Amino acid sequence: MEFVVIGGDAAGMSAASRVRRNRPEIGVTVLEQSVDVSYSACGMPYNIADSGRAIEDLVVRPAKAFREKHGINLLTGHRVERIDPGERKVSGVSLAGKPFECSYDRLLIATGASPIVPDLPGFDLPGVMVLKSLEHGRKIKTYLKENNVRKVVILGMGYIALEMCEALHALGIEVDMVKSRPRLLPWMEEKMSDVIRKELETAGVGLHAGYPLQRIESKGRRLSVACERLTLEADMVLVAIGVNPNSQLAADAGLRLGADRVIETDRSLKTSDPNIYAAGDCADAYHVVTGKRTWVPLALRANRAGWAVADHICGQTVNLHGVAGTGVFKVFGLQVARTGLNLTQAAHAGFEPVDVTIKTRSRAHAHPGSSDLWVNITGDRKTGRLLGVQMLGREGVVGRINAAAVALHCRMSVEHFSQTDLAYAPPFGPVWDPMLTAANQLLKRL
Amino acid sequence: MEFVVIGGDAAGMSAASRVRRNRPEIGVTVLEQSVDVSYSACGMPYNIADSGRAIEDLVVRPAKAFREKHGINLLTGHRVERIDPGERKVSGVSLAGKPFECSYDRLLIATGASPIVPDLPGFDLPGVMVLKSLEHGRKIKTYLKENNVRKVVILGMGYIALEMCEALHALGIEVDMVKSRPRLLPWMEEKMSDVIRKELETAGVGLHAGYPLQRIESKGRRLSVACERLTLEADMVLVAIGVNPNSQLAADAGLRLGADRVIETDRSLKTSDPNIYAAGDCADAYHVVTGKRTWVPLALRANRAGWAVADHICGQTVNLHGVAGTGVFKVFGLQVARTGLNLTQAAHAGFEPVDVTIKTRSRAHAHPGSSDLWVNITGDRKTGRLLGVQMLGREGVVGRINAAAVALHCRMSVEHFSQTDLAYAPPFGPVWDPMLTAANQLLKRL
Repeated sequence: MEFVVIGGDAAGMSAASRVRRNRPEIGVTVLEQSVDVSYSACGMPYNIADSGRAIEDLVVRPAKAFREKHGINLLTGHRVERIDPGERKVSGVSLAGKPFECSYDRLLIATGASPIVPDLPGFDLPGVMVLKSLEHGRKIKTYLKENNVRKVVILGMGYIALEMCEALHALGIEVDMVKSRPRLLPWMEEKMSDVIRKELETAGVGLHAGYPLQRIESKGRRLSVACERLTLEADMVLVAIGVNPNSQLAADAGLRLGADRVIETDRSLKTSDPNIYAAGDCADAYHVVTGKRTWVPLALRANRAGWAVADHICGQTVNLHGVAGTGVFKVFGLQVARTGLNLTQAAHAGFEPVDVTIKTRSRAHAHPGSSDLWVNITGDRKTGRLLGVQMLGREGVVGRINAAAVALHCRMSVEHFSQTDLAYAPPFGPVWDPMLTAANQLLKRL
Repeated sequence: MEFVVIGGDAAGMSAASRVRRNRPEIGVTVLEQSVDVSYSACGMPYNIADSGRAIEDLVVRPAKAFREKHGINLLTGHRVERIDPGERKVSGVSLAGKPFECSYDRLLIATGASPIVPDLPGFDLPGVMVLKSLEHGRKIKTYLKENNVRKVVILGMGYIALEMCEALHALGIEVDMVKSRPRLLPWMEEKMSDVIRKELETAGVGLHAGYPLQRIESKGRRLSVACERLTLEADMVLVAIGVNPNSQLAADAGLRLGADRVIETDRSLKTSDPNIYAAGDCADAYHVVTGKRTWVPLALRANRAGWAVADHICGQTVNLHGVAGTGVFKVFGLQVARTGLNLTQAAHAGFEPVDVTIKTRSRAHAHPGSSDLWVNITGDRKTGRLLGVQMLGREGVVGRINAAAVALHCRMSVEHFSQTDLAYAPPFGPVWDPMLTAANQLLKRL
């Protein structure tokens, strides 16, 4: 059997390696358009923050190892341009300009996602950057090194934008952040996102929310970012306003796309063509709270989906449970985490949601070094079910959110969750874990 | 209705306050034998570590507040000596030597637990300490202040012993720890407890496991601890070899006791007498993994049980889900956590347990500041069920264990747990959370 993979990052390489490991008799070819495979994309902001480290430090396993140790026919610099599901063939052109063709019995589309770049003037100017692939990271690092970058404007205020803000700040670079819509982190409970806003302002970051972008212009050696009612100058601009799934190849092959043009997959990662799988940032997943399709382009999900594809190809039953939408990030001294649905998403999904936000402490009464910790929790009035949790603080946030994620996987009620035996010791939290206190408060309102 | 509570610590005061808050028409009397109520007992080692802080810093709410704000008839210095279930009366003697008597409609026994002191010579000498009540903490602080304590021998190597070892070490005091049985933390997977042993040894703590105690003797101004084959001198001795439930009062009243002489309660905290409840360290609970009675004398459980008693007295349906045996503690630079059953306990409970121990990293590939992180996970071969998790590391342990605790409450399978959408960001862990990696490894063996 021949298994062909398009895309050599998290989902693609996970699938390829696992098939080879479990069924060495299956031939595996990976077609990757860039020269980079298997790197820690999420680590890029932290690598960029350290000018002494090479971007290549993020490579988890070199291409050579996949070829020699795993026996994968890994072809970098191979851009697939067409899938022919009838003939079970893919074709494209190599970086060297040479056409190639490749037959498959099973195909995995793991083409990832691409940064959204607005169709406005000036976004193709030198010094206007995006950050998704290792090549983007390399380009940013080189640009920072070779130009005397003292000031950067970041367009967008999501995960990547915030992590890059911190990274650039660590390099002594002044940062302004701009977004079109009025709220920083609109998915977050407002009191909590205000805490993040203050943290950024305290660090000296200029925050400009509610300024629709118009264009970028070259101004001498600098760039000028023009928005409605606001113009900012910078030495570099980072566009971090979101990503789109790379699904055109799948669409051209007649595969079914869902909302946001994400490739539709079932719980064994099969697309609408029984011989073609999709996994990673280009594919959708089921949400454990709503039971409906959702798009969560995050790393764990991509790796897990890659493995699941491999297992299915190797003949195992695969029935992925789905995602809870768990995410965490760090922004200066704060840890930010969420899982499940917020109030708006829950209402939209047909629940009758109620939420509560509490502010408590990260350590026990009278224990030194304690700091504020916020929890927002959402439940369903009709069923009593736990729907989502958000958390924010200087410590104790990241691991804690996982308890709520597991509770969502188990469709736990707020009442049952409030009864859980969570860890306590004075250096690590109050006797009643902050999530339990939040659940107890929510129970009064449900 | 008259509600009488024996014992004014976590369970007792939680119950008393909640009844008053929810049903102000119920008269509430609390009879506490000491002069202290409502303090953070678990905080004592950390308070002792800081000679600049008063032990009274640990008082969460002063007696005055309970009397004046909550309208609780709080009688400190009142030692109950007898319960008469037929007459629904308790009687005893006050510190001033005055007999008292008190009638109840509903009674809560929240008498806690007492440190075990072996029946061997010399354990009543001055300078031989225990640590359970605030009075004990006060006595230790005073002793350390007034005597030039340079060396302490701690008998026992459990939570309190280890936390006190760190506290005394922080004060510049040399510590030797001794126990009769051969293993440090026998409940812990051996490779992991070895890591703790090394941490203690690196800090200069003398560890002597496998030396049965014989007696303590006075030797000039010092104490001499004699064990088989070992004699140690010290300025102070701390006996921390465990606790026994304070259940004699209940036994004398004819209430049913279970294993370890713990007061038996049902899921609404009622004892074998329908008018008498028991909660906190003197009472048992149901284990969510085994479904059987267990004794876990920890703080969260005591507080929760106190609330549950109050809710039941106020007419609500109460059906406590039980405990998972979740516990965490800090020892020097290490965080240690566990929930559920270990391999031995699981076999004893009738499961067909299999476990696996992994060593991974606390942060993502190539992220600076990463340290080792160990996970031990146990599952049942017959049912595939997750039975317990232990964890150890310098960061990221404490919150993380809670996800496993929630999974135990939900009777999750290892397979389902391995599918959960746990948080990932490079500063906080690998893409595959250490618990997921452990679960994936265990799946191969189940």
